[in-house]
Amino acid sequence: MSAGELSRLIRDKQVSPVEVIDAHLERIEATEPILNSFITLLADNAREVAHRAETQIQAGNYRGPLHGIPVGLKDLFNTAGVRTTSGSRIFDNFIPSEDCTVATRFQQAGAILLGKLNMHQFAYGPTGENFDYGHMHNPWDPEMVTGGSSGGSGSAAASGQCTITMGSDTGGSVRIPSALCGIVGLKPTYGLVSRAGLTPLSWCLDHPGPMVRTVEDAAITMNAIAGHDPKDQATTTREIPDYTAALTGSVQGLRIGVVKEYFSAPLDPEVETAVRAAISQLAEMGATITEVSLPLFSESQAISGTILMSEAAAYHRDLLARDGDKLTPSVRLRLEAGLFVTAADYLKAQQGRARFNFEMAQVFREVDLLAGPTEPVTAPPILATEIGIGDQTVGVTGALTQYTRPYNISGTPAITVPCGFSESGMPIALQLAGRPYDEATVLRAAHAYEQACDWRQRCPPI
Amino acid sequence: MSAGELSRLIRDKQVSPVEVIDAHLERIEATEPILNSFITLLADNAREVAHRAETQIQAGNYRGPLHGIPVGLKDLFNTAGVRTTSGSRIFDNFIPSEDCTVATRFQQAGAILLGKLNMHQFAYGPTGENFDYGHMHNPWDPEMVTGGSSGGSGSAAASGQCTITMGSDTGGSVRIPSALCGIVGLKPTYGLVSRAGLTPLSWCLDHPGPMVRTVEDAAITMNAIAGHDPKDQATTTREIPDYTAALTGSVQGLRIGVVKEYFSAPLDPEVETAVRAAISQLAEMGATITEVSLPLFSESQAISGTILMSEAAAYHRDLLARDGDKLTPSVRLRLEAGLFVTAADYLKAQQGRARFNFEMAQVFREVDLLAGPTEPVTAPPILATEIGIGDQTVGVTGALTQYTRPYNISGTPAITVPCGFSESGMPIALQLAGRPYDEATVLRAAHAYEQACDWRQRCPPI
Repeated sequence: MSAGELSRLIRDKQVSPVEVIDAHLERIEATEPILNSFITLLADNAREVAHRAETQIQAGNYRGPLHGIPVGLKDLFNTAGVRTTSGSRIFDNFIPSEDCTVATRFQQAGAILLGKLNMHQFAYGPTGENFDYGHMHNPWDPEMVTGGSSGGSGSAAASGQCTITMGSDTGGSVRIPSALCGIVGLKPTYGLVSRAGLTPLSWCLDHPGPMVRTVEDAAITMNAIAGHDPKDQATTTREIPDYTAALTGSVQGLRIGVVKEYFSAPLDPEVETAVRAAISQLAEMGATITEVSLPLFSESQAISGTILMSEAAAYHRDLLARDGDKLTPSVRLRLEAGLFVTAADYLKAQQGRARFNFEMAQVFREVDLLAGPTEPVTAPPILATEIGIGDQTVGVTGALTQYTRPYNISGTPAITVPCGFSESGMPIALQLAGRPYDEATVLRAAHAYEQACDWRQRCPPI
Repeated sequence: MSAGELSRLIRDKQVSPVEVIDAHLERIEATEPILNSFITLLADNAREVAHRAETQIQAGNYRGPLHGIPVGLKDLFNTAGVRTTSGSRIFDNFIPSEDCTVATRFQQAGAILLGKLNMHQFAYGPTGENFDYGHMHNPWDPEMVTGGSSGGSGSAAASGQCTITMGSDTGGSVRIPSALCGIVGLKPTYGLVSRAGLTPLSWCLDHPGPMVRTVEDAAITMNAIAGHDPKDQATTTREIPDYTAALTGSVQGLRIGVVKEYFSAPLDPEVETAVRAAISQLAEMGATITEVSLPLFSESQAISGTILMSEAAAYHRDLLARDGDKLTPSVRLRLEAGLFVTAADYLKAQQGRARFNFEMAQVFREVDLLAGPTEPVTAPPILATEIGIGDQTVGVTGALTQYTRPYNISGTPAITVPCGFSESGMPIALQLAGRPYDEATVLRAAHAYEQACDWRQRCPPI
């Protein structure tokens, strides 16, 4: 059940938060041995908070659509009194004294923290063996990856272990696991959701975002967490609209661009067919589809990778010197290599970013949204480093991030929404991207599509 | 005569722009063999424009206080059809096809371009032998430096070769030569004056600014050149006030801070005495003086130097590979060294900058302005690399930039205004710094001080 559905029952006192938490804990007990979504499960604490919520709601103090809803946070969101590992054994015993702003806002909205979710070490995903807390498994097929780095958030939300989870997205880490696990994931505009109290990977590319089962739940979550935070100077001071009000069910009159370069990149034919069908569906529903061009798409991996490596190395430099031997070899190598990037190369990447963003801004003078695949493939097997796409063999990391990194570079909102299944039964996803701070239009189109083609009927076999 | 004085005569048709230009060309002829302020003199062109201005004004089309006023631009301001060398023989024949925005705005205001002014190679000052167009000489003593990198702008404005000149300031390049040549120099807020069409040294620290003989002239110039420019995305979109309206002659009620760390740095006693007297004068005129602290002042050289080296190397990397042997040894060395700065070091410097700016912002909650020396010494001898200050021997570059770099880091406005003379007859200067975009208060206080203590009575001996 989505947060939207569940919250109406809680509000009307047809279901108690205690029942909700118990049902989720049962689901976790049944599935966690397969999935490994959690680093820290807060069963007792969640039950206690649920009892308090029940009392409050019985007393007529219903706080709104997140009251009593079970939430999980990627384990780089600081939680007061609850260990926060950032996916590394180095921080196995690190217990923050303060909540991150996102956790505070969930708490103020009455949500119940169920646990801290598994992730790649220091968020350095999206696949590989960069784990200190064990592999994460895809609920649609446990032999396949969840994608990352917010993989535990993906599997927990997709399998019904949590109703809402949060991830963070530097090169795709919200959208990749959302797409591969068949859920909805929103990377909001840079500066819309506070990063205060999150471990950074690359601070100028990091975006916290919701991972949920319906577009409505993404809107409900954004209503609670978006907006200015004095603790994160990058956050906007603009007024935050009611995002659920944007969910009109219509795409009538929207101009949607299809980036032609996206279809020249390695792309599985089965995925392409499903995504093109989704775009046709949007056209049938009244959107206008136009082909557009982003020539610098070909440089987006180099731009994003150079910035990310540099900032990750700068942030973790002291830790690398002190505890380098406690890192997984792949994370250690990437951090060490990051220390060799010159300032001139970093600045060249930032200049490339400015040129790319100029191209993106030009495209958004012609269209309201961009539509395309979130991923070129369905979830690859665990431990695969290369995969075949058509007649090409490509690296998994590059393939999984090729369509997601562009919107980290531009800092503009992008949502992933399920748009079908492969023959083998793995989810396929549509990505919709919009103008800066225009989450309303992104959510509106994703919601209209979701209503028209309810892929949610199908549940993970787990 | 200042632009303010001259413009009233031009407006009232008591003096013709042609007479003005002829007088300045005479002055140039008499002094240029000693000063070497110009890389390119535009005598014929200036006379032609002056004739047109004369006709316009006679016909009643007076454009305002810059109409008919002779202006000189540092030779890194692009001028359409006029070679722009950036102080390097590599660009000896470079003729831009477009004016920089500042040049366009001067032209629209009716100012007359007299020439392009001498500077350190690619603005890599503030002293040394980084010249392709010969040493610049201080009008108060030709054996002393003008300071740089906008040295030609300093000597041209101080000696009366031009009424208004423009420099650019990355680590002090407007304020250093203004202070050492005994004129007024304003480094405006980052984003207030367009950099479009200027050769960058370090784009996040570069500020174009006026170098003039009176504070009123700085205000008149800012009225013409400040404000949004679509060609420079960093420029502000806010409304620009009339800066001349701020010149009330009063400092009554202004809270002025004196940074205690500035007086622990190497500082010539003669300079300290003059600057402290200027601050006492402001107190007598009704300002409140408070001691304030900027503990990170001690890191400002490292922060600014690391950023500057990195961005200069990034910008000139291709040129360095192609034409490195045509650079002066010192510029070449600094650009080559800049290529060795790592991204992590650059980012650490930017983080240090953020901390420094936080300190600065805290100080500006207590005071409206900061007052202190612009330079710790008067102009050193040409070719000096070290100087004695008190009982210390210090490097010239570090000493000349110690009080100017902090405001490049903060991007906040800072003006230098003459505040006395050494026993040897060399000018001493007071620096006044304000809040972001509060040029009005900076100009107001500098003007009030200038009116109270008219050091302008004394003219360079040349």
